[in-house]
Amino acid sequence: MNIIDIIEKVKRREKLSREDIRFIVNGVTKGIIPDYQTSALLMAVCINGLDDDETTELTLAMAESGDMLDLSSVGRPVVDKHSTGGIGDKTTIILGPILAALGVPVAKMSGRGLGITGGTIDKLESIPGFNTEVSNDEFIKLIKDVGFVAAAQTISLAPADKILYALRDVTGTVDSIPLIASSIMSKKLALGTNCIVLDVKYGNGAFMKDYDNAKKLADIMCNIGRNAGRKMSAVLSDMNQPLGYAIGNRLEIEEAIDYLTDKKIEKGLEKVINELCIEMYKLSDKYAGEDEETLKQMIRGVIEDGSAFDVFKRFVEIRGGNLETFISPEREKHYEELLSSGRLFKKEIELSKDIDQLSAELVGRASLMLGAGRNKKDDAIDPYAGILFLNKPDDLKNDEMLKLVLYSGDAGKIEEVLQTHLKMFIE
Amino acid sequence: MNIIDIIEKVKRREKLSREDIRFIVNGVTKGIIPDYQTSALLMAVCINGLDDDETTELTLAMAESGDMLDLSSVGRPVVDKHSTGGIGDKTTIILGPILAALGVPVAKMSGRGLGITGGTIDKLESIPGFNTEVSNDEFIKLIKDVGFVAAAQTISLAPADKILYALRDVTGTVDSIPLIASSIMSKKLALGTNCIVLDVKYGNGAFMKDYDNAKKLADIMCNIGRNAGRKMSAVLSDMNQPLGYAIGNRLEIEEAIDYLTDKKIEKGLEKVINELCIEMYKLSDKYAGEDEETLKQMIRGVIEDGSAFDVFKRFVEIRGGNLETFISPEREKHYEELLSSGRLFKKEIELSKDIDQLSAELVGRASLMLGAGRNKKDDAIDPYAGILFLNKPDDLKNDEMLKLVLYSGDAGKIEEVLQTHLKMFIE
Repeated sequence: MNIIDIIEKVKRREKLSREDIRFIVNGVTKGIIPDYQTSALLMAVCINGLDDDETTELTLAMAESGDMLDLSSVGRPVVDKHSTGGIGDKTTIILGPILAALGVPVAKMSGRGLGITGGTIDKLESIPGFNTEVSNDEFIKLIKDVGFVAAAQTISLAPADKILYALRDVTGTVDSIPLIASSIMSKKLALGTNCIVLDVKYGNGAFMKDYDNAKKLADIMCNIGRNAGRKMSAVLSDMNQPLGYAIGNRLEIEEAIDYLTDKKIEKGLEKVINELCIEMYKLSDKYAGEDEETLKQMIRGVIEDGSAFDVFKRFVEIRGGNLETFISPEREKHYEELLSSGRLFKKEIELSKDIDQLSAELVGRASLMLGAGRNKKDDAIDPYAGILFLNKPDDLKNDEMLKLVLYSGDAGKIEEVLQTHLKMFIE
Repeated sequence: MNIIDIIEKVKRREKLSREDIRFIVNGVTKGIIPDYQTSALLMAVCINGLDDDETTELTLAMAESGDMLDLSSVGRPVVDKHSTGGIGDKTTIILGPILAALGVPVAKMSGRGLGITGGTIDKLESIPGFNTEVSNDEFIKLIKDVGFVAAAQTISLAPADKILYALRDVTGTVDSIPLIASSIMSKKLALGTNCIVLDVKYGNGAFMKDYDNAKKLADIMCNIGRNAGRKMSAVLSDMNQPLGYAIGNRLEIEEAIDYLTDKKIEKGLEKVINELCIEMYKLSDKYAGEDEETLKQMIRGVIEDGSAFDVFKRFVEIRGGNLETFISPEREKHYEELLSSGRLFKKEIELSKDIDQLSAELVGRASLMLGAGRNKKDDAIDPYAGILFLNKPDDLKNDEMLKLVLYSGDAGKIEEVLQTHLKMFIE
């Protein structure tokens, strides 16, 4: 077997065999195939595509290229959720505790944010003391004891994907549905969860700009998962507007707490949370044919009785996190102190025009500029930075104006955002 | 300007600007663009193609990536001929002297053979003492004094092409018409000749297997040349059968001598020689509207009066070559000596069946095995090795059998060829 012959096959749109694909993934993982051959192959795949069989085979080979987690000792099906990434997406932190409170174990390994897209690990790390690095044993123990775990990827999950992704990033071969699907699903399969619900986002703030491609990606990923023996489901969700009121790491943890304590629930976020919770519950061993209305009531139940928030608190406590300054009235005091000491700056603004142009992407870029995200992988982030909507366009009545607050540790950044991203909305 | 954006453009079939293409070629030549990005770009070009403007721009940028020869001191238009490579193709060595004898200066920089395709430089080096390395000054002096020069490439012609070609070879991106056209034409343009006749071969022994693709390649190359201010013409020639009687380096020099001395002229070879000579003459400043019949007579004239062979002898003499053992009866004595001393082996065979299956490709492979060619760039070659047809299929009358002689310095190789490539033709 010869890598050039395999590259030529993809170039000529001939079908790759299982052996061809194993040869590629093995060669890439072991560093036998040089980058220049891999990138030619990736470009051929990017332009000519792969069929379902090839994509499944690629995903399995990538999943098996490194460590595979064995969750069988949990003794029950474990549910995972994957979002393709968006602006203000704190759903993991809300739905994990809800499902755990409903008796469904949820386990996730999450990434950090890059560009305008946030990451669950960064959000959790905005909680003082919180340690996101979890050993395999701790990971399984958290599933058993708390019913919810979201942790940073510490084990070598799908190392072939890591190599391929790094190369795709610098060779213009990112936007290939089979490559995106196999990249995501290889890590999901290596994690060993039994049920996976995909939250595939579309819109200006998402990786997939339009619904049709998002649907295609969702279908392919569900196919791969089912071929690998997983229970799969996908939700397609709109990412033309940011999700919820808060964008920024700590702001989003605060919004998750407000949600779980039933203080402030944004309607768009609630819609996505309910959809995902219902799909996840339906895949789990707890599901007994309840209809959607009943399931929604059950979700409200664990919010209202505080049991979902209890799960969250327990999870944070075990991971060393301190929520003291997140709960009122300590939260307000904490902010006053930061603001008065000049460690944090804020600016409340009203948007007077064209608010339908205020896209998720634009909000993401503004938030990134304030310090909430990273341009490059190793950039530091400001946990307090971000944007808090005091109302969302859907909340507005009569002549009400859209109001939001910009937060940053750097006052200049706030001015910069007002002069650039938000200039068109303020007079 | 960013290489990833340029790669994405080709991937999305968007047109590259002049600046994009200069950025690529400059980055490749200077080693700024890493191989993995170049190979992704090459694959995108290979699958999606380039249009005529882009191909011309790429060729010019590649031509200008290194030294450009200035032939203006010759004071007259110089004609070049390029063959895309075939089996038994000794046309340069025959037509150069013919045209020089007709008063048309011919200049060529040639390559060495690789795989089943022979190279003019290897053929000339089978002449004892012949030095194929020519300085720029010597190159121009030979054009002026002899009217014919074929030399090895010593100056750095189109270094970008060298880098791209090496990468194409290992990334499955060789068979792209725009890339082949720009690779060939960049070197032609850098050489600085005013008129270029292309011999684009098609068939099993050629790089282009079918006529249509060969035609496409010829048209694109003529376009590029004309856009760069050159007079261009192309001949499409059949390479399903080897050209002439001899395949092998020294054997082909002997056939060229037999041709130029009017001793033995194979009809297929004569057809190609005449076509190319006529096209080259027509592009030259000597052409005064003569019709093809007149031109053929002029060609015969310089063969019959010995003036073409005189040019050849003068060229060889200046380059230090010794033709003593190439002329009868010395030639026959030389072979007797080699054969009797066991330094050379030969085997005459008759092919009794299926001679229509004796393709150029198969003859090329057999000749390669006998030692006439190289599998890898640095392999040594056996100047005496090869195959001499005593007749060609077109010569056969009634029950005549096709006869050929295998030559090799290694008797085992002759047996090997009889057991493999030629097995099906002998009982």
